[in-house]
Amino acid sequence: MQEIRARLQQWVGEINRCLEELLPDPDTPPAVIHQSMRYSVLAGGKRLRPILMLETAGLFVADVRPFYRAACAVELIHTYSLVHDDLPAMDDDDYRRGRLTNHKVFGEGMAVLTGDALLTMAFEQLARLPADFPGREERILEAISELAQAIGTRGMIGGQVLDLQAQGKDLQLPALRQIHQWKTGCLFQATVRFPAILLEVSEEEKAALTSYAYHFGIAFQIVDDILDVIGDEAKLGKRTGSDQRQRKATYPALVGLEEARRLAAAAVEQAVEALTIFGDRAWFLAGLAHFILEREH
Amino acid sequence: MQEIRARLQQWVGEINRCLEELLPDPDTPPAVIHQSMRYSVLAGGKRLRPILMLETAGLFVADVRPFYRAACAVELIHTYSLVHDDLPAMDDDDYRRGRLTNHKVFGEGMAVLTGDALLTMAFEQLARLPADFPGREERILEAISELAQAIGTRGMIGGQVLDLQAQGKDLQLPALRQIHQWKTGCLFQATVRFPAILLEVSEEEKAALTSYAYHFGIAFQIVDDILDVIGDEAKLGKRTGSDQRQRKATYPALVGLEEARRLAAAAVEQAVEALTIFGDRAWFLAGLAHFILEREH
Repeated sequence: MQEIRARLQQWVGEINRCLEELLPDPDTPPAVIHQSMRYSVLAGGKRLRPILMLETAGLFVADVRPFYRAACAVELIHTYSLVHDDLPAMDDDDYRRGRLTNHKVFGEGMAVLTGDALLTMAFEQLARLPADFPGREERILEAISELAQAIGTRGMIGGQVLDLQAQGKDLQLPALRQIHQWKTGCLFQATVRFPAILLEVSEEEKAALTSYAYHFGIAFQIVDDILDVIGDEAKLGKRTGSDQRQRKATYPALVGLEEARRLAAAAVEQAVEALTIFGDRAWFLAGLAHFILEREH
Repeated sequence: MQEIRARLQQWVGEINRCLEELLPDPDTPPAVIHQSMRYSVLAGGKRLRPILMLETAGLFVADVRPFYRAACAVELIHTYSLVHDDLPAMDDDDYRRGRLTNHKVFGEGMAVLTGDALLTMAFEQLARLPADFPGREERILEAISELAQAIGTRGMIGGQVLDLQAQGKDLQLPALRQIHQWKTGCLFQATVRFPAILLEVSEEEKAALTSYAYHFGIAFQIVDDILDVIGDEAKLGKRTGSDQRQRKATYPALVGLEEARRLAAAAVEQAVEALTIFGDRAWFLAGLAHFILEREH
């Protein structure tokens, strides 16, 4: 676990440098939107999605630097979804990643535009991938199209729609699973499939990565629910108990804390199992799945 | 002008059929977001941007049907920008295209998600263009990247940022021009450049189209400002006088109604002038520029 932690830290540094460089300069007019984008993106996230993409690419190629642009694009997409989900008209959250949410600092109108700008910038960067992968334009477009679908109305946005509709209602486990799968699972899956499509790996390997990301996503989400109940606000960087205040269905609420922990551990086992065909090469991805079980934020 | 009007009507019917077909079925879960997307897209807009793209393509190829997907994508982008701009945190408009704005019907949270979904769907469709233009993947990515830039923070989104910041302030003409150029001009320009990039037309032709769209955009925006003062609410499908209520700078307010009309006519002349190198082939694009001078909505 020490090795995992060290490598994670290294990745986070690398990805933050890359995001910092890619984002528009804070002084470039109109400065306020560029400052707002940087405020939310450079707020110290876990960078799980870029790391997943880069480590997946690393299963197949030695030099993963050509994937940095796409990895950053996925983090921009993730951040856009957080900025919009935090809006008063949605989850109405005041804190995120240890600081005030975007709309609390820049106002609601600017927060909407900031999310829009991050999503737009992500696709602009993805369309620029030929600079990193000359000759692979057909695969790039296929990967972009799949990613766009994963964050659309039958994916990430759809999950947020279901989440909005579920507020204050009694949900059962299958409905909660569906929300989680769409809201976070689809993007995890598209993230590991992206380099696999670009590199034209075998269908069997793609299926294995998809299964890994699927179970990884479930474990991640259950732990997220658990942390909202028992987590440390200082470490999480946001208030705990918000699910309960918003009367949101969660794993602990539906099956109890013990059973939720067991389900998360089982999902991690299945994620690791899916990696079997990659052998020892996938040690970090396997370790990462175990790591999220023990995460405190 | 009768010929222009007839052809416009034909295009609108064609584009509406295409959008109708492309948009997710209203019964597909999560149904509410699909209904919301359809509500705003199929609300009977002028479809100026798709028409501009298809007519531009028509300067160079006989069969423009392969451009329908991209033309629809541009209309999705335009509609996303309207849905977000109408939000209470932005322009706070109640009516649009003759019906209640999206957030008035579906709520603010859903309106944010609807805009997000339309933007995401636009890029998904653009990434699928290889189905219509096999072998042109490199050009497709170049065109997408340029379009994304045109609707980013140094384009359409940037224009809305400046617009937000300008509310209630005294603007001079250069500042107003900058807002208009970014907010609407950039997307008009990217719209005509898109097929030009895909078809690899000469730099001279691209420059001519860009100039046409630039002046077209100025004329369009001045007329928009004029209609907000003297227009017929029933024909416009939205309340007039909203610029004045929001104390927005407009051409009539800054230079008077007469001079605004003169500037619009001059911009149309320049737009038409830019088309010279295309000769008679560009009769419709030229007529369209004259047409927007006389539009009543």
